Parts: sequence; C-alpha cells; structure tokens
Amino acid sequence: MSQYWSPIVSKLRPYVAGEQPRIANMVKLNTNENPYGPSPKALAAIREAADDRLRLYPDPSATELRETIAARFGLTVEEVFVGNGSDEVLAHAFQALLNHERPLLYPDVTYAFYSTYSLLYGVEAIEVPVDDGFQIRLADYDRPCGAIIIPNPNAPTGIGLPLTGIEALLAAHPDAVVVIDEAYIDFGGESAAGLVSTYPNLLVIQTLSKSRSLAGLRIGFALGQRPLIEALERVKDSFNSYPLDRLAQLAATAAIKDEAWFETGRRNIIASRESLVRELEALDFEVLPSQANFVFARHQSRSGAAFQAALRERGILVRHFAKPRISDFLRISIGTDEECARLVSALNEILAA
Amino acid sequence: MSQYWSPIVSKLRPYVAGEQPRIANMVKLNTNENPYGPSPKALAAIREAADDRLRLYPDPSATELRETIAARFGLTVEEVFVGNGSDEVLAHAFQALLNHERPLLYPDVTYAFYSTYSLLYGVEAIEVPVDDGFQIRLADYDRPCGAIIIPNPNAPTGIGLPLTGIEALLAAHPDAVVVIDEAYIDFGGESAAGLVSTYPNLLVIQTLSKSRSLAGLRIGFALGQRPLIEALERVKDSFNSYPLDRLAQLAATAAIKDEAWFETGRRNIIASRESLVRELEALDFEVLPSQANFVFARHQSRSGAAFQAALRERGILVRHFAKPRISDFLRISIGTDEECARLVSALNEILAA
Repeated sequence: MSQYWSPIVSKLRPYVAGEQPRIANMVKLNTNENPYGPSPKALAAIREAADDRLRLYPDPSATELRETIAARFGLTVEEVFVGNGSDEVLAHAFQALLNHERPLLYPDVTYAFYSTYSLLYGVEAIEVPVDDGFQIRLADYDRPCGAIIIPNPNAPTGIGLPLTGIEALLAAHPDAVVVIDEAYIDFGGESAAGLVSTYPNLLVIQTLSKSRSLAGLRIGFALGQRPLIEALERVKDSFNSYPLDRLAQLAATAAIKDEAWFETGRRNIIASRESLVRELEALDFEVLPSQANFVFARHQSRSGAAFQAALRERGILVRHFAKPRISDFLRISIGTDEECARLVSALNEILAA
Repeated sequence: MSQYWSPIVSKLRPYVAGEQPRIANMVKLNTNENPYGPSPKALAAIREAADDRLRLYPDPSATELRETIAARFGLTVEEVFVGNGSDEVLAHAFQALLNHERPLLYPDVTYAFYSTYSLLYGVEAIEVPVDDGFQIRLADYDRPCGAIIIPNPNAPTGIGLPLTGIEALLAAHPDAVVVIDEAYIDFGGESAAGLVSTYPNLLVIQTLSKSRSLAGLRIGFALGQRPLIEALERVKDSFNSYPLDRLAQLAATAAIKDEAWFETGRRNIIASRESLVRELEALDFEVLPSQANFVFARHQSRSGAAFQAALRERGILVRHFAKPRISDFLRISIGTDEECARLVSALNEILAA
C-alpha cells in the first residue's frame, strides 16, 4: 500500500495464473496448453512477416482477421471483436457489458478471473452455487440480474452444458447480457455461436490459445450482434488502439483458415482425454465428465495439494486450487499420449508409496 | 446506445488513431512510425522463435525483457513494468496511480488519449494551458493536485522540457505521482529515467514503437520505484495475465540490446528532422522547435485541413487535429530523406497552386 496508489489498487485480488517454469523437461500439464504445435501455416505467416514492416503499426481494427473469423462462423465482420487473448476480451466485456444496477451472476466454481474483474470494475456479482456433482443448474439463474457469465464447458470442472439449456437461458433473460465463455468449446461442447443472430443479448467469447495452440501469441475474440460489439469497441478504443500486433493478426488468420489442422488436433486431444479418464478411473480417481482439454479429478487417499507436490517431485506440473469445494481436486491438462503415460506412471508410484 | 451497455460506455470518447491505410505506395507520415526497419537482431529473434513453442503461454512477468530494460537503465528488475504498447502502460497508470481525490493535471495541448483515459477510469482532470508559443510552463503546475502527467517532448508539438524543470516539479510535488511520458525522448530530449532512484513519485513511460521501430509489435514499459510498479502489476494481474506475447518479448529484448542500431537510427532521424525543418522554414512554414520524430508546423496561406487534403491527393498522409488552438497545424512524421523530399516537393506544388 502506498500514498501514490489510486484507491482501487488496494482492493484488488489479482488473478494468479498457473506456473510458467523456466525449468526444462518438465511435463507441463498445469495451464491447459495444447500439446501439439500450432498450424504450420500460422508459423509460416509469422516468418514471412518478420521484416521491416514491423516498423508500422498494425491494423487497429484487425479487419482481415475479423473477416476470417466472421466467415468461419457465418457472421458479418461487425459482429466480431478481437483482443489480446480472451482475458482482454473478457475484461472489456466486464467493463462494457456486465456492469449494471442489478447483479451479475456466475457459478461459484468457475474461472477465477471473473471475481477479479468484478473487483477491478466495481461489478456487483453473485456467485450461484453449482450442485453437488459440480453441475451448473441453469434453473438457479432464474432470478433478477443485470447480466450472466457462464463458461461452457465450465472451468476448472470441464463439465459442459447442452445448447438447449443455453438457449432457454437467453430466452428467459431478454434484458440481460449473457456471456458464454467458450475457451474450451472445441473439445466436445456445443458452441452457442450459431445463436448469435437470434439473440441480441448473447455474447460468445473464444480463444486461439487452446484448440488453435497459439497461447504464446495471445488472441481471443467475441461474437455478438452489433450493439454488443460496439460497446466492446468503444472500451477498446478508450484503452489501446492497437491491442493485436501484426504477427498475431497474421498467424491467427492463418490458424483459423486451417480447418484440417484444427480438426485433427482437437480429435487427437479428445481421444487422449478419453484414454486418460479410463486410466485415472482404473486408479480409483473420481473424474468429473469433461468436455475440455483437461480433466478435474480427485482421489480419496490424498488431498489435491499432496498429489500436486508429489507429482512436482517427479517432474510433472498439474494445477491445484486451494479453494472451498474443490481443494481435493487436481486439474490435469491433456498432454501428448507420452506425457499422459508419464503422469499415470507417476500416480501409480505415488499411490503405491 | 443499447440497454445492454454498462453506463460507462455511452460516456466514453474513444481515441481516434491516425489512419492505417490499406493502400500501397502512400508516403505515410501520419503516425510517427520510424522510417527504418527494426534491428535485424529483433527480426532474427522472431524467426528463431516461430515454432511449436508458440503453443505455450509466454512468461507472464516478461522477466528476461524486464531484466534487459533494467540493465539498460541501471535499475532493478522490480523497477520495470512492461505492457502491450505504451498505451496499455498509460491506461494502467491512469487506473492505478492517477486517480485521486484531488485532480490530475496535464497540458491542454497534449496526447489526446489522456482525456480518453480520464473518462474511462473516472479521473477528475484539469487541462493546464500551454503558453502562446505552445510551451509547457511548469510553474503553472504549482497548484494542489493528486497527480501530474506530462509528455516530454510533448505531443503533438514536439517541444521538450529541460530535466532541471522536471526535477523541480518532482521536488515540488512529493505527494503526487508525476508521470513523464517519454514516447519520443530518444530524438533529442533529456530522459528522466536517471531520476527514478531519487524520486519515489516519478514514473517514466517509454515505448519501443518509435526509436526502436517496433510499432507493429506493441511494447511499452514504465520505470519507477517499487510501490509504483507494484500498483501497475496489481492492475495488470487483474486485467490480463499475459499481455506480452512470446515473440514481442524476444524481439523487444533483442532490440533493447542492440545499442549500435539504436544510436545510428535515432541520429539519422534527428538529422533528417533538422533538414526538413530548414526546408519547411524556407517555404515560410512556422515550425515549432521539435525534439521528436515529427514536426508540428503551420502556414499562413492555408488551414491545416486544407494542406492535409491536398497532400493526400498527392499520395502523402500527414496528421491534422481539428481541435482548439492547433487546427492550423500539420503534424508531419520524419520519413526517409526521400519521403521528406517528396513531401517538400508536394508542398511546393500546393503553395504554387
């Protein structure tokens, strides 16, 4: 605390991201990165653009990228917003669309950044408990509110929601913005992107960090009807004219266009997840049903923290949250099959100890 | 305006950046880009890193880049903050350090984003008039205030301040944060970076977009004592864990280390500026004394808007601000000598018409 701080600063509870170790040869299953590299076309686009043109500002509107995303989802370019990672898109959404007189609703077990954003922007928020099976019960959102944000599938549980439920939620709350955070949607969930043209209150947010394997470049986007996108643009243009650099715009455009790479990658990850779930269950782990590129699992023999520490000693990083309701769990990102095998072998060793 | 907007959105006055045309062969002297490409070492760093490692998140703390900047300025890594362009660093500074019960002070003729940030974060601001020669009179800042932000050199005038004046300002306001926005400092100004260790109320902000020619990659940084940097970090970690992508971190690190490239580039631009000023004065332009990579000039024969339009017809983009006190002026970025010659020739043609 310092006399120089604006009053807001001491009230913040900054988000703590998963560790990015500077140690080599760790099996890194702690931040839900894609185990496979990005589309070779994205890498080629970067190498071709790494020249004197970097002296010039990027297109502040990222028009080509937005056109590409629009075409991919059957929308117009005015219905697409892009940002420096989906976290930036989420932050702008909290400021531009989720701050109302009536409270914002989101699940109590969810992406921890939502409560951080609420504090940053003074958004009054109510956390709606998930049920004992960690499922979001959409009926619990039938209450007066200014806005709703729900991840589908949810993080860190991985549990997905059916599109029919989301559509019912949108119809039940015509006056409230409903944000569906689809960071992990491509690993088995049903995207709400196709509902954008029908529901003026729907904003869908996705990222290129997971299914397109570009976490290192920071690109996220939002899909919504024009008034919602305009609100995001107004905040963005009051914050940073050029949030997406030249290389990120080009690589993202190439990545979105490479559907073949995308399909193969996500199918491989889904298959690896299903194998890993079977192996964890064979070791008596309780694994929540996951539609994401991670699983959320617990074991009655040890706490999540104990497993995390024991795995770290064996060179394997997983995520653990010291939080109410979920402190027993480990969140394990889906790695390559070899990485998953190393994890299972380490767990066998720990359980035998 | 939409029922879905948070109340703040309709109050914003988004910043309008200089045009980034998608037309080839324009002489682009409108957004203060560097006419020379970035350090070849920065480009090599990008090409070497454009591989499967982009699947991984970047270092959220950008430690290597911050260590490099710290070494360059004789500071510790904890005294350096980095962001996605200096606009993001400025935005965080407005939210984290410039919002107090007493007003923020900045010049009436200055970087237009300051008033935009003030609206975005609800900062009460007073614009302190520059004098008739467009000079900032530091004595005018001797009034009760919560914080001060001044660009040195100022934009869009290019006029610099002596370091003795800035030091006196810091000493006169020990309870107020003083931000010196040094986007253009490397073209002839005196940086306040050397005062950071002495003044706990000083924050210096710089960018790699101008003197390091990396506008296309979006990298800015702030230098200050630990409490100021901590406030920025708390806001950053409440906004976006990974604002700087992998390639930007690597290229920026290489660029900061390439002092020889940097020295040559900035000397060339200063020399071109001095030639251009002489040629503009020979055409009876009034040119404000510039320490930046642009000049701010007017001519009694025509308005700034008329010159801008006539230049555009001739394939040359310059910036004009339709604002009180400065609507007569053109802001002309320093191009290559060939680009400057094309500008002068076009102005000759316009004046002869």
